[in-house]
Amino acid sequence: MKKIGVLLSGCGVMDGSEIHEAVLTLLAIDVAGAQAVCLAPDIDQRHVINHVTGKEMEGETRNVLVESARICRGEIHDLAEIGTLDLDALVLPGGYGAAKNLSDYAFRGAEFEVLPAVAEAVRSFYDAGKPLGFICISPVIAARVLGREDVELTIGNDKATAGVIESTGAAHANCKVANICASKEGKVISTPAYMLGPSIRHVAQGIEKLVNAVIARA
Amino acid sequence: MKKIGVLLSGCGVMDGSEIHEAVLTLLAIDVAGAQAVCLAPDIDQRHVINHVTGKEMEGETRNVLVESARICRGEIHDLAEIGTLDLDALVLPGGYGAAKNLSDYAFRGAEFEVLPAVAEAVRSFYDAGKPLGFICISPVIAARVLGREDVELTIGNDKATAGVIESTGAAHANCKVANICASKEGKVISTPAYMLGPSIRHVAQGIEKLVNAVIARA
Repeated sequence: MKKIGVLLSGCGVMDGSEIHEAVLTLLAIDVAGAQAVCLAPDIDQRHVINHVTGKEMEGETRNVLVESARICRGEIHDLAEIGTLDLDALVLPGGYGAAKNLSDYAFRGAEFEVLPAVAEAVRSFYDAGKPLGFICISPVIAARVLGREDVELTIGNDKATAGVIESTGAAHANCKVANICASKEGKVISTPAYMLGPSIRHVAQGIEKLVNAVIARA
Repeated sequence: MKKIGVLLSGCGVMDGSEIHEAVLTLLAIDVAGAQAVCLAPDIDQRHVINHVTGKEMEGETRNVLVESARICRGEIHDLAEIGTLDLDALVLPGGYGAAKNLSDYAFRGAEFEVLPAVAEAVRSFYDAGKPLGFICISPVIAARVLGREDVELTIGNDKATAGVIESTGAAHANCKVANICASKEGKVISTPAYMLGPSIRHVAQGIEKLVNAVIARA
């Protein structure tokens, strides 16, 4: 059974992993007969957002690994252990957590950096020829880490973010929500998900295709 | 378009809504062409559990409505507004939140009570002939509120909980995870979900059937 890593970034679209995207990824992996292995970095979230008001909850601190564990019913590994897990592929769901905790794109725009442990994981899977799946906003991470490798990535129709992707040396691909884009080598796959939406059934279509493509190439 | 209420109880299986069950409910409603309307009570959670260790996070307080909003990307209503929303049916996903926040079953066992606002919602939908869907552990709520109405409910194979359901006057139905059970009137529908599992693809089958049955009878 193929083991597919799912790298989470918290629990909730505004400060962590987009929950629908993460759960749909786990569903598609299970339906395809592979095993999902969830991971997250053991770091504090950049902040905590009240998802009713959209405002920061001042003075509140939450840990990315601990909150991510909510999405996978407690079955989670510290990202630091990734080298010991014998994974065949890695998928990054979206949500602002990818742009706030796994990278600082949401705060620094084009000058953003990727968390070193995340960059190292993406680079090592790429170099090993293992498939990588990027959902929603998480393709910015692929762009920063792999930008010079002529990688083509989706971001929906957010022109500013598409411009940032191209500034890294990667190419931006127009792609509908129900579709995926694969780089020339076929190992870097992305889908716009909630960058386009509009609703969960559309997002589910693209994520199912992405997961099936990742597993087929693993 | 039919409007299906989804009553949440927090965000995470150990102290709130089971996230997979909640998201699969939203997916099935959207795929069926109905509209999901999420609700939660504006009350503090009974406690907060660290989903890595399974232990209580002492001194931490979270609000059920605010945390539930993570599951529905901020689109949520206070349960107190339910009478104004013109809903056609109501579904309760599982997770310990149903037994800790919406009721106190997890703490008091057979002597448990249901939060008055939840009991009132369930009773009013039942009396109006509107379908009710109960997933995983949440059928205990139906048992307590509707127990004397000769309602048949699933709980998986947890004998203690099945006994509590029968002690209320409701009947316990054996049911596989991919199936549903409907009461004689056909308006009270339940499925075991993660009371049986074992994995998300099995849970998805039962929830899809439950949601389709709820919508068909709304």
